[in-house]
Amino acid sequence: MACEVQLVAQTPAPERVVASAAKLCYSPSRASDIFLGPGDESVVFFLKKLRSIGHLSPFEHASFTFAVDGLSRVASHQLVRHRLASFSQQSQRYVKMTSAAAVTPPSVSALPEAKDIFERQLSSAMDAYGRLIALGIPKEDARFILPHGAETSLMLTMNARELHHFFSLRLCRRAQWEIRDLARKILALAHKAAPALFEPSGPSCLTQGRCAEAQSCGRPFSSMEEILSEDS
Amino acid sequence: MACEVQLVAQTPAPERVVASAAKLCYSPSRASDIFLGPGDESVVFFLKKLRSIGHLSPFEHASFTFAVDGLSRVASHQLVRHRLASFSQQSQRYVKMTSAAAVTPPSVSALPEAKDIFERQLSSAMDAYGRLIALGIPKEDARFILPHGAETSLMLTMNARELHHFFSLRLCRRAQWEIRDLARKILALAHKAAPALFEPSGPSCLTQGRCAEAQSCGRPFSSMEEILSEDS
Amino acid sequence: MACEVQLVAQTPAPERVVASAAKLCYSPSRASDIFLGPGDESVVFFLKKLRSIGHLSPFEHASFTFAVDGLSRVASHQLVRHRLASFSQQSQRYVKMTSAAAVTPPSVSALPEAKDIFERQLSSAMDAYGRLIALGIPKEDARFILPHGAETSLMLTMNARELHHFFSLRLCRRAQWEIRDLARKILALAHKAAPALFEPSGPSCLTQGRCAEAQSCGRPFSSMEEILSEDS
Amino acid sequence: MACEVQLVAQTPAPERVVASAAKLCYSPSRASDIFLGPGDESVVFFLKKLRSIGHLSPFEHASFTFAVDGLSRVASHQLVRHRLASFSQQSQRYVKMTSAAAVTPPSVSALPEAKDIFERQLSSAMDAYGRLIALGIPKEDARFILPHGAETSLMLTMNARELHHFFSLRLCRRAQWEIRDLARKILALAHKAAPALFEPSGPSCLTQGRCAEAQSCGRPFSSMEEILSEDS
Repeated sequence: MACEVQLVAQTPAPERVVASAAKLCYSPSRASDIFLGPGDESVVFFLKKLRSIGHLSPFEHASFTFAVDGLSRVASHQLVRHRLASFSQQSQRYVKMTSAAAVTPPSVSALPEAKDIFERQLSSAMDAYGRLIALGIPKEDARFILPHGAETSLMLTMNARELHHFFSLRLCRRAQWEIRDLARKILALAHKAAPALFEPSGPSCLTQGRCAEAQSCGRPFSSMEEILSEDS
Repeated sequence: MACEVQLVAQTPAPERVVASAAKLCYSPSRASDIFLGPGDESVVFFLKKLRSIGHLSPFEHASFTFAVDGLSRVASHQLVRHRLASFSQQSQRYVKMTSAAAVTPPSVSALPEAKDIFERQLSSAMDAYGRLIALGIPKEDARFILPHGAETSLMLTMNARELHHFFSLRLCRRAQWEIRDLARKILALAHKAAPALFEPSGPSCLTQGRCAEAQSCGRPFSSMEEILSEDS
Repeated sequence: MACEVQLVAQTPAPERVVASAAKLCYSPSRASDIFLGPGDESVVFFLKKLRSIGHLSPFEHASFTFAVDGLSRVASHQLVRHRLASFSQQSQRYVKMTSAAAVTPPSVSALPEAKDIFERQLSSAMDAYGRLIALGIPKEDARFILPHGAETSLMLTMNARELHHFFSLRLCRRAQWEIRDLARKILALAHKAAPALFEPSGPSCLTQGRCAEAQSCGRPFSSMEEILSEDS
Repeated sequence: MACEVQLVAQTPAPERVVASAAKLCYSPSRASDIFLGPGDESVVFFLKKLRSIGHLSPFEHASFTFAVDGLSRVASHQLVRHRLASFSQQSQRYVKMTSAAAVTPPSVSALPEAKDIFERQLSSAMDAYGRLIALGIPKEDARFILPHGAETSLMLTMNARELHHFFSLRLCRRAQWEIRDLARKILALAHKAAPALFEPSGPSCLTQGRCAEAQSCGRPFSSMEEILSEDS
């Protein structure tokens, strides 16, 4: 089962905020006078210009907050390596794990024998966790026996510049499947909320027309629709 | 003349965003279910708890964007040392300085003889700048002769955690007067927009009841009103 | 079993680097002339001054790199939340786990019945991992069934400013025992390598004479020896 | 007159530190056993592999500290926008400016009439500064009348990953001439100290064989020698 993502907060009018900040850099106007109004066509002009010249810092003024459920701790450990992001994660020190929820990799689900091994082991791990708790072992210690695949929940805030960076790394076909699935869901929500900020966004095959990996997968993306319509 | 500050964008319902993220850390609920509603009294409870235990990371989920005009380059050079912030500053490479606008320090304004020296020098610097431009010197080089006090405009985004840090350093009576004036104006706007996030915020004399400086000024602040009502 | 830490690289003469940078801030000398020689007594003077006035940025010029083995993924997940640090961690995507090495919490080791549950479960997890690999499941997916307590190895670089911050948080008696054990071993090595940089360093009870936690443990540290001599 | 740069500290054996950290990510060895010895030929292999696959984080383990003199405050204001770096800068709040030292842009030096305007103005600014000080105006306020071109001194630490990023931006022919001159001097020193870490390093025309700018200058660099041998 794959993670679920909701957009729970964002900078209002994020495209106008970014474009206005960009305009200020090149204009003699005062900062307080420069804010672009709704429908101002120069918003798209400024956003395109920023992208084309690689002037990405104005994208930092718009932030997006996501609620994420059903992500494995394997993926959350990777995720929190992104330093320009803010995370609030459910604590296994304080919260008792009550269900056998864990992320099952697709390669495991696809093979009945593997699925059986995985599910039995998961069940026995939850059982051992419960017995350790019953013996008085603190939650923060009993969790050492839980599997890496155990589900976690978290809130995540990134600004639009870091989101672009995140998408460029994590939407490549060579990225690990679970964080790629997370990235795809975040992109779908961010793109819907602020199309001009994220049109386009993704791996270098899409945004720069060339692969930045040492070994190309040989299947470059040609559109955002292609990225967004992939199965998990 | 002192700088002018406007709040131009912010995370909506910032107090609920921060409190909801905090609640998730200690709750078995799903991230997507945890969002606190308007008027939920636990918002203030969670914000107070976070402050008291020093768990500040949830404050990162709420961001505020300010338009700043009339700030000297002396102050902007200090300001951009805050790394956990985003800046878009008017470029002196691309924008021609057209007026003799510069920040005059209060100590200079208060002394007629000093004020006269300052203003004559400012005027002659603007004149030299104009003559260099007229000779074909690029703007980015002619600006080397402009005074440090020359005014700049910028947009600035900080999250609530960094704002607290900024206020703790820059609202101390020993901070440089201009950045302190900027900090006071930012605090007034942030506090009005999200009182529960910034009640209290300021130097350690106010928030911790003791001075964190090596040499105390001997005049601790006892309330936010006292900080906010100071003259520039 | 607890983690093992080695200091594998560091800025040479770190105390003189930090003190020289500090001296520059307050001196009309040229940066290239200011470097303090071995045995210069003003090194300790400048380091004390910086600590007393809270001017911590010069401590960033000295870095320390540690090799860490035998740390659980529970602890490494916490550790990588420190953003002002650099990590290179053994990858479970690429490296096959070959032994049943996992960190056993002291609370589990101390209770024979719990230890028995833990070890059986660990053994069965390693067995399941091996069978999944044998079935052709990729390493990056089979690891979902490994326990959180599984050992990892990593290299870690922090500068002296971030080390102070790390020690202040992670050497408190209320910190999680494993990351606290790691912090103690890192402090012992850093302190031996550069005593004047880390004298003192630790939680606020030691460095500021007061507890910064909401609920004090009631047992303040009174010396670094006391911190360093604790059992894991 | 252009800035002067000295390398005053660095991680010893930086190439082996980075390569060893990289090796750990892909090896079942323990971190404490993995350190590559002097002359180990796999150092260059690992460094090339990292570059080719864009796995840049191991480059963060090696740091370099530079003493910089004769840099204008125009350039230092740009420089401190690099957030992943550490700066200790001579303070104009505490240090009295005693000489008329300022950076004169080459475009100004090349034109006698401009040079004359510039030098007269510089001289009159220093004179005004001195008279303000004599009237009792604090140094931190009198400096508002000093020109942006006034020289500053600073110490600067960057790790090798950030240095690569810095060089990619600041060695482009379209970068501002003074920060480009600084970057060239830093590259020359870093490259001499650790050739395998910085071979190659520079703008995208050199390292990726294509221009990353919106408008190419039309004169791509073809070798590091070409970059390093340019006049200021």
